[in-house]
Amino acid sequence: MIVQKRTFRIPELLLQSGSVLREVQVGFETYGTLNANGTNAILVCHFFSGTSHCAGRYHEADAEPGYWDAIIGPGKAIDTSKFFVVSSDVLSNVNAKAPNVVTTGPSSINPQTGRVYGSTFPIVTIGDFVTVQKQLVDSLGIKRLHAVCGPSMGALQTLEWCVRFPDFFDRAMPVIGPGLAAEPYLISTLQQWCQPIFDDPDFQNGDYYGTGREPMKGLAQALKLITFTALHQDWANRLFGRRLADDGDPLREMNARFAIDKHLDEAGAQRAQTADANALLRIARANQLFSIEERKNNIRARFLMLPASSDLLMVPAMAQRGAEELRRLGCEVNLHFIEGHGGHLDGLNAIGQCSDAIRRFMEDAPTSARA
Amino acid sequence: MIVQKRTFRIPELLLQSGSVLREVQVGFETYGTLNANGTNAILVCHFFSGTSHCAGRYHEADAEPGYWDAIIGPGKAIDTSKFFVVSSDVLSNVNAKAPNVVTTGPSSINPQTGRVYGSTFPIVTIGDFVTVQKQLVDSLGIKRLHAVCGPSMGALQTLEWCVRFPDFFDRAMPVIGPGLAAEPYLISTLQQWCQPIFDDPDFQNGDYYGTGREPMKGLAQALKLITFTALHQDWANRLFGRRLADDGDPLREMNARFAIDKHLDEAGAQRAQTADANALLRIARANQLFSIEERKNNIRARFLMLPASSDLLMVPAMAQRGAEELRRLGCEVNLHFIEGHGGHLDGLNAIGQCSDAIRRFMEDAPTSARA
Repeated sequence: MIVQKRTFRIPELLLQSGSVLREVQVGFETYGTLNANGTNAILVCHFFSGTSHCAGRYHEADAEPGYWDAIIGPGKAIDTSKFFVVSSDVLSNVNAKAPNVVTTGPSSINPQTGRVYGSTFPIVTIGDFVTVQKQLVDSLGIKRLHAVCGPSMGALQTLEWCVRFPDFFDRAMPVIGPGLAAEPYLISTLQQWCQPIFDDPDFQNGDYYGTGREPMKGLAQALKLITFTALHQDWANRLFGRRLADDGDPLREMNARFAIDKHLDEAGAQRAQTADANALLRIARANQLFSIEERKNNIRARFLMLPASSDLLMVPAMAQRGAEELRRLGCEVNLHFIEGHGGHLDGLNAIGQCSDAIRRFMEDAPTSARA
Repeated sequence: MIVQKRTFRIPELLLQSGSVLREVQVGFETYGTLNANGTNAILVCHFFSGTSHCAGRYHEADAEPGYWDAIIGPGKAIDTSKFFVVSSDVLSNVNAKAPNVVTTGPSSINPQTGRVYGSTFPIVTIGDFVTVQKQLVDSLGIKRLHAVCGPSMGALQTLEWCVRFPDFFDRAMPVIGPGLAAEPYLISTLQQWCQPIFDDPDFQNGDYYGTGREPMKGLAQALKLITFTALHQDWANRLFGRRLADDGDPLREMNARFAIDKHLDEAGAQRAQTADANALLRIARANQLFSIEERKNNIRARFLMLPASSDLLMVPAMAQRGAEELRRLGCEVNLHFIEGHGGHLDGLNAIGQCSDAIRRFMEDAPTSARA
């Protein structure tokens, strides 16, 4: 499946904070064909460091397809020969320097000043991401969504959809998500990811663009922590054991590393090349602010929740607490564990094992019709 | 129980790295009385950021007793009316600036130069800590230990004792410990704790003493991370929920925090007042280097292993893997979970719930005599 990035434009966007963004650009992708009634669309929301590229390849030579290619495509669990799949970038996408990321964020030019936003870019929320998605969906002629889904921060967006537009869709599939709010241990984890950026002298309170200095070290360290937290002890045991890096004897040199840290340091530095520190800080804050607790009575959807059994970030207990709360609200909730040893990332890498459950959820008639 | 710190002196100590430390001082405490045969002593080894103060109070007015006071004292699980309890600081104790810490570390004067060690203080190992303990134990007239035990890094020392001096004791009680080695995920966690110190411009490669600048910010952040990792989601939910700190609106100000981070920031800064950054780095490295895998055939002890069910640092699976390996080696292993929601710290705070199991383990005749 060859796919392309498209750009959605919003002249003026009122954010939850009260700030207004002008001339907003948002990257998005679609796969499959919208039916005549405009009712066969499934919205896929992306994770913290992801983009709207959830399936297919831009070119045949691309090394990797989109992150959920295992379940999205012709004949797959989310079958693009039946469904019209839509996915859009969140505002302030972390991967601001990646090719194919066109979305407005802190490194964009503020059309009102002609200068880069930098520290003046407003704080954005999961609610703001959903506002953008609803405008995009409307613009595409979608009259009603068939389902909303997504992994990790995509699960947060899915849950936010449930309280904002409860009558616009029936099916919600939050994968490796939290309960109905970001719990405090997660809030602090997110803060710890941000800390190396705040502490990098090159951060300059967020106004580093054009100064010749960017907080690359802090950004790389943040992305190292994110990578690490999204994995699992078993992953580390299998891939690294106690092997040493090739940079000295840890019994005699404080700077000598073990192989796992060399790998994670390099992965962080690599990811930092296409990321932006200010964007990452705002995405972390969006996650911290997430809560639908006080609006939970709005929810009408039925749920397929897919926590990962080895997840150390969105620990399965969070989704379980969420499922219990949704059931108390009268929602139908099918809770199904992604089994594995890959940690949080199993929500991406091992999603294929849930293909049958996902297909049934997407294609079965609603319970009331079956009864 | 009123206790006091004493000082053990070693004129010359050969370390595992090959370095030699001269005029070494090590703080230690003892409770109870050694019997005439010198055979009723129990060695207690302390955790990462602990000291040898494991029971009793220095003064009646002390707010808190030693960390395992719930199980050490007259009539308690480790009954000081029967046993002579010995505990000593590890070299390079993290709490270098605390009153009652007299132990040699990077902030000590190197007697050979007359100047502070700083970056020249050697890397020390769990094996070095055990070497010191053996010399201390011998100096006290102990002919044979009744048991060796300790929580977290104390469990590492306990396991190291098992391979170094297998004929010197029968009972080993590692609490909230790893398996037979520090696994890579733990190694990287330890590295992440150290990173804020390395990244603090005031660290000056470890030679900050007397410069008027110490890496207090990095040290506080390291101690924040340690505190955080040693706790649990349920702890955070119970104590903080999604409450805000009183420093701004997180929807509008990037520096505004949630209550949990304000608490952890303050806890880290508080702990940093009595700690030393270089000492912390060396203790982290000592933990990273821990492995008895290649010497495991030496082990003769029988075990009471006490992982904590909610531990996010030394996850129970690590102790379970260790227990399986010890059983394959023919060791008798009683694995008993500390139940709770307090994370790793349950190995300190909830240890009292294991009093009966600990008492039986310490006082029962060995299995062979029972059979």
